[in-house]
Amino acid sequence: MSELELDPVIHAQARLRVVATLAGLPRGDRIAFPRLQKVLDMTAGNLSTHLRKLEDAGYVAVEKAFEGRSPATYLSLTPTGRRAFETYTASLEALLKGSLE
Amino acid sequence: MSELELDPVIHAQARLRVVATLAGLPRGDRIAFPRLQKVLDMTAGNLSTHLRKLEDAGYVAVEKAFEGRSPATYLSLTPTGRRAFETYTASLEALLKGSLE
Repeated sequence: MSELELDPVIHAQARLRVVATLAGLPRGDRIAFPRLQKVLDMTAGNLSTHLRKLEDAGYVAVEKAFEGRSPATYLSLTPTGRRAFETYTASLEALLKGSLE
Repeated sequence: MSELELDPVIHAQARLRVVATLAGLPRGDRIAFPRLQKVLDMTAGNLSTHLRKLEDAGYVAVEKAFEGRSPATYLSLTPTGRRAFETYTASLEALLKGSLE
């Protein structure tokens, strides 16, 4: 990708929301799937699809755990994902300046 | 669209580049097609396709003129397009904050 190329894994609106939300967590924190779903107001299926794509890119870590007998899924941004998001926002900022140079 | 919904006409990466570039022109200015094409490093066909979509949305004005015997095409952002871009960037900024509220 060129310097100004926006990472298509992140640029798609739904995934941009996911990544921005995860990037807003304190570093090291993770968020439970149902809470993320509520914050983003997305269906479970739609959210799962986008999370899988982000996981495949190495941007999001998906951790499964049991709380008592209930399975729980936690999401967080990986260091790679955080760097990709920082690169994305820097490229976006440059692009939005609409330089004619 | 909800407040946080990013205008899909603008969000597509190629059109975002076009709109940001046109928004960077001094108000009232316009840019010749070949110069815009050079700035964006897009093929004429690809640029035309995206300009048509932006024109259909009322965001971009396309003016054709003759310079001597040569036809020339000039592009500019309409007031509607400028407002749409301002709304887009405000929504994007809010989205990037990744609020968990």
